[in-house]
Amino acid sequence: MTRSTALHTDRYELTMLDAGLRDGTAHRRCVFEVFGRRLSGGRRFGVVAGTGRLLDAIRDFRFGDEELRFLRDNRIVDATTLDFLAGYRFTGSISGYREGEIYFPGSPLLTIEGTFAEAVVLETLALSVLNFDSAVATAAARMSVAAGDRPLAEMGSRRASEEAAVAAARAAYIAGFAATSNLEAGRRWGVPTMGTAAHAWTLLHDSEEAAFRSQIDALGTDTTLLIDTYDIREGVRTAIRVAGTGLGGVRIDSGDLPIVAGEVRALLDELGATDTRITVTSDLDEYAIAALAASPVDSYGVGTSVVTGSGAPTAGLVFKLVARAAEDGSWVPVAKASAQKASHGGRKAAFRTLDSGTATSELIAVSDGFEELATAAQFPGARPLQVPLVVDGEPDAAALGPAGVATARAHHARVREELPVRALALSKSEPALPTEYREL
Amino acid sequence: MTRSTALHTDRYELTMLDAGLRDGTAHRRCVFEVFGRRLSGGRRFGVVAGTGRLLDAIRDFRFGDEELRFLRDNRIVDATTLDFLAGYRFTGSISGYREGEIYFPGSPLLTIEGTFAEAVVLETLALSVLNFDSAVATAAARMSVAAGDRPLAEMGSRRASEEAAVAAARAAYIAGFAATSNLEAGRRWGVPTMGTAAHAWTLLHDSEEAAFRSQIDALGTDTTLLIDTYDIREGVRTAIRVAGTGLGGVRIDSGDLPIVAGEVRALLDELGATDTRITVTSDLDEYAIAALAASPVDSYGVGTSVVTGSGAPTAGLVFKLVARAAEDGSWVPVAKASAQKASHGGRKAAFRTLDSGTATSELIAVSDGFEELATAAQFPGARPLQVPLVVDGEPDAAALGPAGVATARAHHARVREELPVRALALSKSEPALPTEYREL
Repeated sequence: MTRSTALHTDRYELTMLDAGLRDGTAHRRCVFEVFGRRLSGGRRFGVVAGTGRLLDAIRDFRFGDEELRFLRDNRIVDATTLDFLAGYRFTGSISGYREGEIYFPGSPLLTIEGTFAEAVVLETLALSVLNFDSAVATAAARMSVAAGDRPLAEMGSRRASEEAAVAAARAAYIAGFAATSNLEAGRRWGVPTMGTAAHAWTLLHDSEEAAFRSQIDALGTDTTLLIDTYDIREGVRTAIRVAGTGLGGVRIDSGDLPIVAGEVRALLDELGATDTRITVTSDLDEYAIAALAASPVDSYGVGTSVVTGSGAPTAGLVFKLVARAAEDGSWVPVAKASAQKASHGGRKAAFRTLDSGTATSELIAVSDGFEELATAAQFPGARPLQVPLVVDGEPDAAALGPAGVATARAHHARVREELPVRALALSKSEPALPTEYREL
Repeated sequence: MTRSTALHTDRYELTMLDAGLRDGTAHRRCVFEVFGRRLSGGRRFGVVAGTGRLLDAIRDFRFGDEELRFLRDNRIVDATTLDFLAGYRFTGSISGYREGEIYFPGSPLLTIEGTFAEAVVLETLALSVLNFDSAVATAAARMSVAAGDRPLAEMGSRRASEEAAVAAARAAYIAGFAATSNLEAGRRWGVPTMGTAAHAWTLLHDSEEAAFRSQIDALGTDTTLLIDTYDIREGVRTAIRVAGTGLGGVRIDSGDLPIVAGEVRALLDELGATDTRITVTSDLDEYAIAALAASPVDSYGVGTSVVTGSGAPTAGLVFKLVARAAEDGSWVPVAKASAQKASHGGRKAAFRTLDSGTATSELIAVSDGFEELATAAQFPGARPLQVPLVVDGEPDAAALGPAGVATARAHHARVREELPVRALALSKSEPALPTEYREL
C-alpha cells in the first residue's frame, strides 16, 4: 500500500463504528446521501467535481499497520473494531451525479449503500473531496461564463494548500478553464499546463531588455513577456524591440486593467504588433472578468478567487443517513428534525426536466424502499442524473484518472448548455431551477 | 523516495530556470523574501503557521523519474535543465519567523538565500503551505481570543480538501485550539483528537434511547451525547435517564444557540446533572463564539469557519526577489515598481519593539548588503523575530514533526500575551502595530 486515506476521518465515525459493532447495529444495511441544503454564496447553480478523485481515495481507504497502531495506542477503538478495520474494504455501491454535472439544492449527488459500518467511515473523506472540488468548479464555471470565448488559465496554486491546489486546477479545468500553471495537475490529471514569467525574472537581470532577450532565446518569440515590472509603456516598447512584431503575448499583472489593457493594445498596434496577445492576471474574479468584456484582452489568468471558490470556499454538502434496514429487514426512511437543518428521508431518483432542450426543474422522486425507485420511463423527456459509480466495491474505471477528467469536462460543457439564460447571470440570487420532490 | 513535492510548482518557475541556466543568471546568488503586503480580511494581526510542514516539504522537493519524465515528455524544459533538476537539492539557507509567531504587513516571514536556480523553484510550494496554514491559524487565534478559557475543538475536515484538512487541524491547534476531530492530524502531528456522535447514530437505532444506551455502553458515561436529532428537551431527558446525572456532556448542533443553551442548562440542572457539560457546534465563527460568552456553554466545536479562514481563506503572502548578486559579486537590492504592488528591496532584520512587555511596533531594518544586517544590540529591548530555519540545506530538526507543533503552540501562546489589548478586538481594523522601516 503506497498511501492510505483511512485516517482522513473524523474520530466520531470510528467511535460510532465501535459502539455499533458492540450492539450489532453496525451491520444494518444503510443508505447515506450526499447533498447540499442550499447553494453556497447565492449561486444560481452548482457544479459537481471531485468524483473521480473520491473513487480513487475510496480505493485507498485501507487501514495499514501505521493507521492501526495509532488507533490502538490512542485507545480510540477496541480490539474488535481494530480487527474489523484491518480487513476493511468498501464492498457496497455508490451511485451519483456524473462529475461535471450541474446541481441544485437537494440534488442527491451521491447515494451510498452498504452496511452502517462500511459506509459511515467514508463521511469525512467524501465530503472533503466533494466540498472543496465542487466549490472551485462552481466558481470556475461562473468565470468561464463571464469570459465567453476567451481562454482562462488557473494560476492560484500559491493561494491554496499544496494538495488542494492540484485538486483546484483539476476542478477548474472540468468547469471550463483551458489550462493551469500547476505542474502536478498536469502530471496527475492531464490538465494542460502554461506559464509566463515572474517579476523576479526581470529583477534578476541587469535590465528588463536582458531579461526579455533571454526569455525569447530560451522559449521563442511566441512566449508571453511580463511588462509591468518597471514602466508598462517602456516595457511594451522594449518587448517589441527585442522580440519583433511577432511576439506572442504580453502579460499585465497590475494597475487599472480596463484602462491599462486599452493603452497597451493601442501601443502594440502602433508598434505594428497587431497579433501580439494581451493576458491579464491581477486579482481577477468573475466580476472583474465580466468588466473586461469590452476591453482588448485575449486571455485571463485567475489565481486566488478560483482556488478559494470566489467567496464560497466550500460547497456546504452534507452526508446524511436517509434510510436503514429495520430488524425485520424492511426499509425505514429516516431524517432528523433539527431546527433549520431538517432533511428528506428515503432513497431518491433525480431527473432534470427539460422543455425544448432547456432545463426547467430538478425533479427528485423519493421512495421509501429500494425496489420502487423511479425510472426515466416515468418522466418522459427528463434526463436521469444518476449513474453507477461504484458497484459492489468496484469503481467505474471510466471515471478515474485523466480520462475521467476529460469526460467530466466534456459533460460539463454539454449540460451547461441546457441551463436557462437566467442561470448565467453573476449576481446573487435564488437557484436557477426549482427543486421539486415527488413522493412515490 | 516515498513522495516528491517537486511538481507542486508553477510551470513558469521551471521555464525561468531553463532560460536562466542558458544565460548564466540562474547561478546568481539571490535573496527571496516571503511577506504580506497587508493582513487579509481587515485582521489586526496575523499568525505564522506551516513552517514545520514547509521544511519537511522542501526536504522532499526532489525530482524523481516520474517527475522528470513528465517534464521531458511535455517539453517543459530542455535536457540541461532536466539534468540540473535530477540532481536538485536545496543547499541554501532560510531564516524566518518562528512558527506560531505573530506578524504584520511587511514582516519578512521567510528569507531564502541561494542561487536563483535553487530558490526560485520553491516559490509555489512555500506560498501554498504558508498562505493556507497562516490563514487558518490567524482565524483560529481570533476564535481562541473570543472563547477565552473555554476549550475549542476543530471539526471542519469535511469542509476542506482532505490534505488541507490535516494542515488546518494542525494550524488551529498551534493558534490555541485544544483538539481536532481529524485522526490523521493526530497521527501525523500529535494533535489531540476528540469526537462525539453524528445524527446518523441516533437515526440508525430504533429509538434515541437505544442509541444513547449503546454509546454509553461503549464509551462510558463521560461521553458526549448529541441531543438534537428529534426534540431537544426530550433528548436531554432521555440522555439523563439513560446515563444518569454523571453524564459527561451533551452536544447541541442546531437552533438559536444562546437561547437553546440556556434552556438545556436549566433542564440539566433541574434533572440534577449539574456537572454535565454543554458543547455547541452549529456554524460557529469568532463572532458567534463571542456572542455566546454569557451563555452557559462549556466548549465549542468549530468547523467551516476555521478551516476556511473565516472569510479570509488565504493569507495573501507573496514570494519576492529582494536582492541579487551583480556580475562583480556585489549585492543589488531589487524591487518592482508596479502600481499598487510596489515592494521594499534589500535584506531585512525584523524586531518587535516592546514597552513594559507590551508590543509597540514591527521594526524592519533594511540593509542593501549582507554584512551590515541589523542586530538586536542596535535595538535594546526589542525582540528579534527571525531564527535560522534551514542552514546550508539542513532544516532545523526542532521545527519538524509533532515536537515542532508543540513548540509552535507554546510560542504562539507566549507572544500573543505581548499584544496590546486593541489587537484582540474582533472588528475589522488597521493592523494593531505599525510597521516601521529603518534604512541602514
